Amino acid sequence: MEIIRTVAWMKEYARAARAEGLVLGLVPTMGALHDGHTALVARAKKECSRVIASVFVNPKQFGPKEDYNKYPRDIEKDAEKLGAAGVDALFAPEATDIYPDGFRTYVNVEGISERLEGRSRPGHFRGVSTVVLKLFEIVQPHFAYFGRKDAQQVRIISEMVRDFNLDTEIVVCPVVREPDGLALSSRNAYLSGEERAAATVLARALVAAKDELAAGMRDVLQLQDVLRRVIEAETLASLDYAEIVSADTFEPVVRVSRACYAVLAVFVGKTRLIDNLYIEPKAQGADEFTFRL
Amino acid sequence: MEIIRTVAWMKEYARAARAEGLVLGLVPTMGALHDGHTALVARAKKECSRVIASVFVNPKQFGPKEDYNKYPRDIEKDAEKLGAAGVDALFAPEATDIYPDGFRTYVNVEGISERLEGRSRPGHFRGVSTVVLKLFEIVQPHFAYFGRKDAQQVRIISEMVRDFNLDTEIVVCPVVREPDGLALSSRNAYLSGEERAAATVLARALVAAKDELAAGMRDVLQLQDVLRRVIEAETLASLDYAEIVSADTFEPVVRVSRACYAVLAVFVGKTRLIDNLYIEPKAQGADEFTFRL
Repeated sequence: MEIIRTVAWMKEYARAARAEGLVLGLVPTMGALHDGHTALVARAKKECSRVIASVFVNPKQFGPKEDYNKYPRDIEKDAEKLGAAGVDALFAPEATDIYPDGFRTYVNVEGISERLEGRSRPGHFRGVSTVVLKLFEIVQPHFAYFGRKDAQQVRIISEMVRDFNLDTEIVVCPVVREPDGLALSSRNAYLSGEERAAATVLARALVAAKDELAAGMRDVLQLQDVLRRVIEAETLASLDYAEIVSADTFEPVVRVSRACYAVLAVFVGKTRLIDNLYIEPKAQGADEFTFRL
Repeated sequence: MEIIRTVAWMKEYARAARAEGLVLGLVPTMGALHDGHTALVARAKKECSRVIASVFVNPKQFGPKEDYNKYPRDIEKDAEKLGAAGVDALFAPEATDIYPDGFRTYVNVEGISERLEGRSRPGHFRGVSTVVLKLFEIVQPHFAYFGRKDAQQVRIISEMVRDFNLDTEIVVCPVVREPDGLALSSRNAYLSGEERAAATVLARALVAAKDELAAGMRDVLQLQDVLRRVIEAETLASLDYAEIVSADTFEPVVRVSRACYAVLAVFVGKTRLIDNLYIEPKAQGADEFTFRL
């Protein structure tokens, strides 16, 4: 596996690979890799002849009071995992190369970026969409792989790709979970033993909502009550938000009648975790749904 | 000359041209073409093996009270001029193709976009940078040609290209003027005969400032007075702004001691015109300057 440390080198590497007719897949990460990330790499390996993973803890997507400085970093361990997973090139640039002096150009996917995660984390999605556009310009991948755990992020990036006429296809991959349901996240490393046990509350809340949906509940206020009651019963957890939103706009809906997400953000101790349930009509306009946790 | 009316077709045309190894030059315009535009095409013809001109009156860069609806449009005449100038393909998309339902992703070059033209025309540069990024994504030109008459626009686009790691090189071309000094602009068509005569006031003001600079004046307040006095002496003209700004940031400077623009926006009757003088040190740090009108 080649380890590429500069933007100029990455551009040249990607240009040469495209010129050879290879199909380029990009797996953008912030490092601290877990099996969710390696699942993205495995999917990319199936569909692409050249797989590039990026590891870049993007300062622009952290708020001033967030965990940018303490976000877990271990580039050697990440490189080992990516090499073992069959990645061809690891792109690990410096922040000063991605954001040189005087940097001042940003992507804003308006509306959706201000909701939910965007409301709790002002500026977060401006940082995400900007760095993802830059990665796409540097690598020009045919495919880019994202996990559905960050459902709103995936929706924002897909909208950006459409609106900006980009040639990269976004591939959305399933959430990877621990056996007890906890969605894999680099931030799970912050949890104490007790908090780790409590953290299953997100998946438990989503399963409870899924069960009620399967039993016929469609009213969003009722469903949100189901989510909240599970969270509130867990003493180490405190709710940031629990909503049922349109899968297209991430705006609230009143009744589940089309593709939706149940989305959760919960503090477990001081660690903020997110998770979601995808709710999809079995057929267009149908009142029966399939669920993806 | 091929006339291309859809985004999908333009992407395919450009992709095929790149695959053939051709060097693509893009001349983005809003139509109502004049000799300034054909000078851009002539430059592109020298440097590229395939020249594409776009004609798109971009609704996103007009304010609600501006002249979007009355902006001059004559696609047949434009096509004739571009064909005669040797353009290979004219890209003339519909607004609904460039901005499909639900479009919501914008480029913001922060800071510089809020100054001067951006302060007089809120949202203008958001619209400009967004449409130019889209054109670059659709055509993926090796070179793109812009006139220095829109100096702030050129600076913003160059910053976007750098910040987003785009592979397009921006080529800035000289201002083309009428024999009496009036900078060519599609909006000159709005001027009555009397206004047309008065409109030379912009170039006259810039020449007056240039003469004072050549004679040693460096103080910006004094130079701005020179500009204002010339404008105020013209009864059909009213000043929007007259400033001396850094060529890098478009922020005001106190003294001319590095590369600067003298920038003017003036209403002649109801028509708003802009013009500028580029002031460049003869050597780095030198107190002698060359001038480009």
